[in-house]
Amino acid sequence: MTAPHPLTPLLAPSSVAIFGASNDPTRISGRSLRYFREAGYQGALYPINPTRDTVQGLRAYPDLAAVPGRVDFGLIAVPANLAVEAMEACVQKGVRGVVMFTAGFAEIGAEGRALQEKITQIARDSGIRLCGPNCLGLFNMRIGHTPTFSSFLEEGPTPSGPLGMVTQSGAFGTHLLALSARRGIQVGVWMSTGNEADVAVADGISFLADDPDTKAIACYVEAIQDGKLFAEAVARARTNGKPVILMKVGGSTIGAAAAASHTASLAGSDAVYDAALRQLGVERAKTPEDLVEIAYACTRGRLPSSRRLAVVTMSGGAGVLMADAAEEEGLELTPLAEDSQKEVLSWVPFAAPRNPVDVTAQALNDPTILDKGFDLLLGKENFPAMVGFFTTWASSPQMAEPLFKAVASAAARYPDRYFALSAIASPEMQRRYEEAGVGLFEDPWRAVQSIAAATRCAERLATPPLPNPPVPENLPPLPRGRIAEHEAKRILAGAGIPVLDEVLATNAGEAQDAAAKLGERLVLKIVSPDIPHKTEMGGVMLNVPATEVSAAYGRLVARVKERAPRAKIDGVLISPMVSGGVEMILGVQNDAVFGPVVMLGLGGIFVEVLRDVTFRIAPFGLEEAHRMIGELRGAAMLQGARGQPPCDVEALAEALSKLSIFVAAQRGQFTSIDVNPLLVRPNGQGAAALDALILTPEAAPGDDEVAP
Amino acid sequence: MTAPHPLTPLLAPSSVAIFGASNDPTRISGRSLRYFREAGYQGALYPINPTRDTVQGLRAYPDLAAVPGRVDFGLIAVPANLAVEAMEACVQKGVRGVVMFTAGFAEIGAEGRALQEKITQIARDSGIRLCGPNCLGLFNMRIGHTPTFSSFLEEGPTPSGPLGMVTQSGAFGTHLLALSARRGIQVGVWMSTGNEADVAVADGISFLADDPDTKAIACYVEAIQDGKLFAEAVARARTNGKPVILMKVGGSTIGAAAAASHTASLAGSDAVYDAALRQLGVERAKTPEDLVEIAYACTRGRLPSSRRLAVVTMSGGAGVLMADAAEEEGLELTPLAEDSQKEVLSWVPFAAPRNPVDVTAQALNDPTILDKGFDLLLGKENFPAMVGFFTTWASSPQMAEPLFKAVASAAARYPDRYFALSAIASPEMQRRYEEAGVGLFEDPWRAVQSIAAATRCAERLATPPLPNPPVPENLPPLPRGRIAEHEAKRILAGAGIPVLDEVLATNAGEAQDAAAKLGERLVLKIVSPDIPHKTEMGGVMLNVPATEVSAAYGRLVARVKERAPRAKIDGVLISPMVSGGVEMILGVQNDAVFGPVVMLGLGGIFVEVLRDVTFRIAPFGLEEAHRMIGELRGAAMLQGARGQPPCDVEALAEALSKLSIFVAAQRGQFTSIDVNPLLVRPNGQGAAALDALILTPEAAPGDDEVAP
Repeated sequence: MTAPHPLTPLLAPSSVAIFGASNDPTRISGRSLRYFREAGYQGALYPINPTRDTVQGLRAYPDLAAVPGRVDFGLIAVPANLAVEAMEACVQKGVRGVVMFTAGFAEIGAEGRALQEKITQIARDSGIRLCGPNCLGLFNMRIGHTPTFSSFLEEGPTPSGPLGMVTQSGAFGTHLLALSARRGIQVGVWMSTGNEADVAVADGISFLADDPDTKAIACYVEAIQDGKLFAEAVARARTNGKPVILMKVGGSTIGAAAAASHTASLAGSDAVYDAALRQLGVERAKTPEDLVEIAYACTRGRLPSSRRLAVVTMSGGAGVLMADAAEEEGLELTPLAEDSQKEVLSWVPFAAPRNPVDVTAQALNDPTILDKGFDLLLGKENFPAMVGFFTTWASSPQMAEPLFKAVASAAARYPDRYFALSAIASPEMQRRYEEAGVGLFEDPWRAVQSIAAATRCAERLATPPLPNPPVPENLPPLPRGRIAEHEAKRILAGAGIPVLDEVLATNAGEAQDAAAKLGERLVLKIVSPDIPHKTEMGGVMLNVPATEVSAAYGRLVARVKERAPRAKIDGVLISPMVSGGVEMILGVQNDAVFGPVVMLGLGGIFVEVLRDVTFRIAPFGLEEAHRMIGELRGAAMLQGARGQPPCDVEALAEALSKLSIFVAAQRGQFTSIDVNPLLVRPNGQGAAALDALILTPEAAPGDDEVAP
Repeated sequence: MTAPHPLTPLLAPSSVAIFGASNDPTRISGRSLRYFREAGYQGALYPINPTRDTVQGLRAYPDLAAVPGRVDFGLIAVPANLAVEAMEACVQKGVRGVVMFTAGFAEIGAEGRALQEKITQIARDSGIRLCGPNCLGLFNMRIGHTPTFSSFLEEGPTPSGPLGMVTQSGAFGTHLLALSARRGIQVGVWMSTGNEADVAVADGISFLADDPDTKAIACYVEAIQDGKLFAEAVARARTNGKPVILMKVGGSTIGAAAAASHTASLAGSDAVYDAALRQLGVERAKTPEDLVEIAYACTRGRLPSSRRLAVVTMSGGAGVLMADAAEEEGLELTPLAEDSQKEVLSWVPFAAPRNPVDVTAQALNDPTILDKGFDLLLGKENFPAMVGFFTTWASSPQMAEPLFKAVASAAARYPDRYFALSAIASPEMQRRYEEAGVGLFEDPWRAVQSIAAATRCAERLATPPLPNPPVPENLPPLPRGRIAEHEAKRILAGAGIPVLDEVLATNAGEAQDAAAKLGERLVLKIVSPDIPHKTEMGGVMLNVPATEVSAAYGRLVARVKERAPRAKIDGVLISPMVSGGVEMILGVQNDAVFGPVVMLGLGGIFVEVLRDVTFRIAPFGLEEAHRMIGELRGAAMLQGARGQPPCDVEALAEALSKLSIFVAAQRGQFTSIDVNPLLVRPNGQGAAALDALILTPEAAPGDDEVAP
């Protein structure tokens, strides 16, 4: 046996004390006690109420200290000004888990925030795991543990089931519970985290990852507090074979205020969330409906083992529609073998036998067509997943039973296949299908969409997460302030980012000496801490013949001095002139949630006009870098679009991964890093950072402007 | 009184004959008769059955001729081999409308197609409007006219209601009926069009456009037969104030086979459908759920009069979510005035008062907050539309009645406002809200999305469709075959497409003479019917000084002759060298449904890598051309992105509109037209077609390759 999960005292305690438990079962603290009793909680239940001997028929105690035995868990619903006292009583009594309904903390301003910090500190010091404050509590129907006043349990306990749910908003979480119940999904464990003074969504995911009866985890999130904790929790769920489906709201309120660097302004926190969730293998749901439907698809007792999908339909139109949906969702309607198609036609002469298989209304006359069809598709054709469109047949007097019999027996004959129907059935018939392991969707498009989501979840669970590359320790500290081109490239080269050979010359003679070694055609760039916009100041010369470098040096310095007489000039950077390839922009920002985040975009219009960029949490390896590149709308530019040779994508991936490792190692030491452009040269010729800029927290405002 | 709609005998006849009417009410032809009687059809009903005196208690007739009075309508469900005979009997009797269930026509191959053409011809010759064959029929519940065997009426007649529905697939149409009924939408008139031998979806839309009791029209389409008829029908609906919501499937089966020209290969029929539906003001629904939800939002008795939306919520999370949805859907959550915000805070100190207005759970304690809130938003703040998130309050013992009272009375106080709730209610409560004119959505995202669709519909109804520009008649016919650059530009210039001054020189002397008039820097291009790829053959010289044109002429011709010794050379085209501006691609294809369709894309990577193109049915005016330009993802390039001056978008719009008028006039005379590129120069400098190619049906294969 492994050790119990650290959240066990919170979510599965053996004994519960309820502070301020009311005898009135309609009041908040009274309601929770009533729920406990209705749900059949088997542990010890201790109402704390100094004014009564009994509460709702249970013996009451004047305070926690008066409770005779051990108390694992405390429910605190007292006013905010009494919350600290209640927490301290819990510490004294050795309570390990607390749910605090009480409002009036961080959500009301500075005073409340201070009070919240106090109770957080008590929790941290004592090791109590605290859920809330300002939350609707939680329930674990597996043991009837119901420290919540959510109206969802108002009409009696909900049956326990395979879905776990963690939600930041209690009110919206209650809505999701209601939607799930109406959809026929049973939620076994539910937790609303409120202000997250201690326990966060990640903790709930982590607990559910270990809970043997939880098959999938649905989350509603407004903001993740700690990206690392969250990543660990979803990794745990993945290891334990449980899909995590998450809805994150707030994408429209783009955090422009925090967007200091160019990279950040392109990001918007939602784009980073989106990339991070993808990278972590979380299925992101866009709407509550999506969340509920995907959760439904993921809790049917099996998951599709590949993207091959068989579609059976009694309506040609529905077949076309499901083919559209499958293509959009990336599922493959592989056509049946020739002889299988002939077999279908031997049953139904006017069938469409390819896939979708349209058996027409003929099965009304001969339901054995269904049995034969299911055997053909799941047996001979070996499809891992099948969806059938049977509209109102599932509720028609004539077909309801024959259809159910055919479907249920096929589901039993092929227990490892994913079988869903698009059909309209009575609630009772719906339950019968679900008990047979077959999910029902009224909308055929929704059916395919949800199967696709379940397939993605299954794919993630079947492949271990990509290992994060090791991050070196004890890298030399970065210089402070604005680290411009020459120095920035030197540092990045040390981290494995490819750069060109280049020399900083401080006089014409040095320039000429350097030129001879660097190539026939050269680029000269002024190096000055006072000139961020080199080109505008005439500080760049392109395509200079090596023989003319000495003269060019003089002209360049003179030109810059004329335009910027007071600028301190450190010298001139001499590098080979390269051409050919595609210019990329790499950037790094420090995301408040996920830490260093690497951005990739194609140079020019792709970033500036189309905002075609993608993100990854650092560090990551080559495979993740390749996925990142593939997400760009303009990725075809790297494959050799418009008559150009294909680019060295491998070198780009390597530069990305190396940059991600470097920024993970330097976490906290910089505010932004731009490699702009990174020239990705034709295949086999590698890549090179042509310019770079690193800013540390000491950089002055305006230092983030990159030379064009 | 206007004349009755031509489909009246089909959809609202006074007398009905049913061929082969069965006494068995479960058989197909018997079922329809039963539906008629259950629905209380008040007209004359004549079962035709030579073997019985009575059918289902009605007097039967041995054949149609034996029926004593007039017969408006015939229902034909006899086998295919008897269908012609039945049609002929209808002609003899003066029947004006026929529904034909019978299968075995075009859907089974050549033989069936021939038979179908026969009955189509009979219908055309006699003026009978024929629905089907191979259809599930139709119903008009306003008069109990039910010539259908759809299982939807199996459990009794459906109540009549504000939605009209036209669907090509009867089986899928039945599914949509079932989904609509479950959603609480009543469909008054439903028609499935099957093989569309005569009556098509457009005819159904046209009838419903005139039907006074129809408030919105929902359609399911696999392929539109006649784009012009369809456009007229939706225009009629628009004129009569009725939104048309349409789902078109088959987007994944891109008609690559028919795609001959470059333009067509970029189009894919679905992109053309999408553009055409937008242009015609049809609300396209992507999925059956979308169709049903938008239809629900559009049949609440009112439509939102602008995009300003007020959001009231008792959950902060739901507020954020609805704000996300509103931004995505283009609705505006304008913030409340300062004093209004203060007022909200005076009721609920911790409210979010801006918009979304989060009144928190405080309204549980004081429901008058709802009355005050609704008055503030609909009265003082004058929002045309409001959505409230009240989760399970609508079904909670404590809040259900107070909430309903507050909502229903606000809906009554502000009868011109659009008011929707996101809430979970019992079916009875749901009906009560709907009777009060308030729609209920369980999912708050879906609520906002559907309100947005209703808003778009209302916007279209409030603005008359853009007038189509007049199309000239008697344009000179096009030359036949491949019409290359010089000639093509001449023709297009005649149609008002701007081109540069240019001269076709056939010797060096002519070239030199021309040069003097054209400018200082010139472009020379070889003109040869045998050289489609001018650049590859060395047939283009750029930036030639005017003084050197004579010599350049010789060099150019010599170079081309060396590379293509057998090419016939017509001369050299001399034109001014222009630079600056953005290159666009304009193309025209003949769409099988919509006729000439104009494509617009930005040159270079936008078309080639990003496939960033948009379409319009020809002809169209300037405003539509501007909308078209605005749809390009890269439209910002024309506004002066990346330090370039803004381009002459007006000139581009004019060129587009002129091209659309030209191709509408030349409909049928060409197979494709490409203007590639059209250089759109900086503001005030106009645009110019730099190259062009027109192909007529006589062009040889391979002629469509455009010179790079």
